[in-house]
Amino acid sequence: MSPARMPITAVLFGIGPIGAGIGRLAAQRDEIALVGAIDSGPDKVGRPLYDLLETTPPSATPQPQVEADAAAVLASAKPDVVLHATGSYLEDVAPQLVACAQGGANVVSTCEELSYPWVRHPGLAKQLDAEAKANGVTLLGTGINPGFVMDTLAVTLSGVCQVIDSIRLTRIVDVGTRRSQLQRKVGVGLPESEFREKAATGRFGHVGLKESCWMIAAALGWRFDELTETLEPVAGTDATGAGQLQTVRGSIGGRTVIEAVVEMSINAERPRDEIVIAGTPGVRLVIEGGVAGDQATPSVIVNSIPGVLAHPGGLATMLDLPPPAGTGATS
Amino acid sequence: MSPARMPITAVLFGIGPIGAGIGRLAAQRDEIALVGAIDSGPDKVGRPLYDLLETTPPSATPQPQVEADAAAVLASAKPDVVLHATGSYLEDVAPQLVACAQGGANVVSTCEELSYPWVRHPGLAKQLDAEAKANGVTLLGTGINPGFVMDTLAVTLSGVCQVIDSIRLTRIVDVGTRRSQLQRKVGVGLPESEFREKAATGRFGHVGLKESCWMIAAALGWRFDELTETLEPVAGTDATGAGQLQTVRGSIGGRTVIEAVVEMSINAERPRDEIVIAGTPGVRLVIEGGVAGDQATPSVIVNSIPGVLAHPGGLATMLDLPPPAGTGATS
Repeated sequence: MSPARMPITAVLFGIGPIGAGIGRLAAQRDEIALVGAIDSGPDKVGRPLYDLLETTPPSATPQPQVEADAAAVLASAKPDVVLHATGSYLEDVAPQLVACAQGGANVVSTCEELSYPWVRHPGLAKQLDAEAKANGVTLLGTGINPGFVMDTLAVTLSGVCQVIDSIRLTRIVDVGTRRSQLQRKVGVGLPESEFREKAATGRFGHVGLKESCWMIAAALGWRFDELTETLEPVAGTDATGAGQLQTVRGSIGGRTVIEAVVEMSINAERPRDEIVIAGTPGVRLVIEGGVAGDQATPSVIVNSIPGVLAHPGGLATMLDLPPPAGTGATS
Repeated sequence: MSPARMPITAVLFGIGPIGAGIGRLAAQRDEIALVGAIDSGPDKVGRPLYDLLETTPPSATPQPQVEADAAAVLASAKPDVVLHATGSYLEDVAPQLVACAQGGANVVSTCEELSYPWVRHPGLAKQLDAEAKANGVTLLGTGINPGFVMDTLAVTLSGVCQVIDSIRLTRIVDVGTRRSQLQRKVGVGLPESEFREKAATGRFGHVGLKESCWMIAAALGWRFDELTETLEPVAGTDATGAGQLQTVRGSIGGRTVIEAVVEMSINAERPRDEIVIAGTPGVRLVIEGGVAGDQATPSVIVNSIPGVLAHPGGLATMLDLPPPAGTGATS
């Protein structure tokens, strides 16, 4: 599990709230050196990276400045890995991923659709896989959800079962405790009609729930006859919404084998992550309170770096990698 | 995650209660063919394997007979993998593992001390690693505990943390619901004096709790200054004991960073598996009732086969392998 090179050189690609969190965590890790930063935001280009991260640079060496030209940063910094956090949709970010691969860099990305891209975007997945292999690098999409609580953790838990009849996944998040950007993303404050209009665009609400189900299906050998998704507003105390309730159901031969429910709303009842496997043996795992996404997404990204560096190359998923261990405090 | 060869050929090595459970599960799996069986028990040698497994052979082809000579079985059956369940202590089973490696077979073993052998048996671990590499095979020790609930699952969960301050692991098993062999193993029915005499031999009680802690430490980058173990009888309703309470504590710089507690007793209160990580973020995972070991140990063994077959060779641990996914029922 020891990293291949010390320090691991990393470039941060995308410095929004999540990207900045990833950057701060990477900066704290002795084994990682941030050697470049990419973001095209006019308020960011040209600024010293650690100013944007609002943290102290680890040493007196010159710190990277944020630049807009990804290819140029990659060519000069030649990082081992790019920590990528620019978007949820694979079609939007694929050119950036190709640029990373062609620049010879491995990628760990927050892109939700990259977590298991083989079903929604088979052509793009094949192309990215080929590009990565041609350049001897590995691309991975991960995070807390998708990437961990509703897929990797469920697949890992399924290892205790002789046979799995069905899986029910539940993630309840009280977004009252989370950043305002996430609240807007899940429809807090939206009138119902507006929520439904946005939902109809297919680019609204939590992204990646089907990806989690496809990842589980791939691991367990399931081929769904049908995989349906619903996205409903959660009623607030006034005329505007309190958030979203999203459900994906997968069936084989008329039997529901997977049900995944994500509720993200203000004052959601009993926030938790729960995995219930009906099988031999049956098993129910609960994390009361749920895993805190704002802190945990950077963790999963940074903790996945050693697995990605050790991977032989291509488009990987969490199914291909060893457990993404965290770092123990020694003082 | 698809196996390298279809079907995977397997030899069962050790046909006690756990070995038989592994054999029955392997027999159920379409992708596995049992091509040989090894056990030196006079009541087993020469008998048809499926008679001992008390299950129906999958086809009309001749079924293997149990043989005592491991090298002979391996030479004629040439299996992809040996499913090994003969003992808990590495010194006892190492010659069998060497025979498997020299026979060109990968091994998935229930041997508790093999789950993370690098600290208790560094010389033997090095020797087995070299033997495996020289023969291009992989050796793995795993199971439900050690192997899963108190190590692999904890390491996987630690992936959501930016930093881990400490970990507390708890496994409470009501052995009243388990096989009598296990009850005897944990001291049910023993007078306290006899329990303590047995405990003093160092070959009594649950085996592998320190191994779980060493595995976690390796993943998280901890080096214990001290790792202590206590083994106490649990008082029963009469003069004899109801089971065992075992505790391992690891410390760094005077601070306890890991505490692992296994209680296995008749009528144990609130049976469960619990992992509490103090860190950023903190997280508490609970499996109420606990994972049922009798069914789950064969699961983890058989579900680890694809990861072992894909591994490049040597002495592996669960830290090196992708998640051991189970198999989904499709009807």
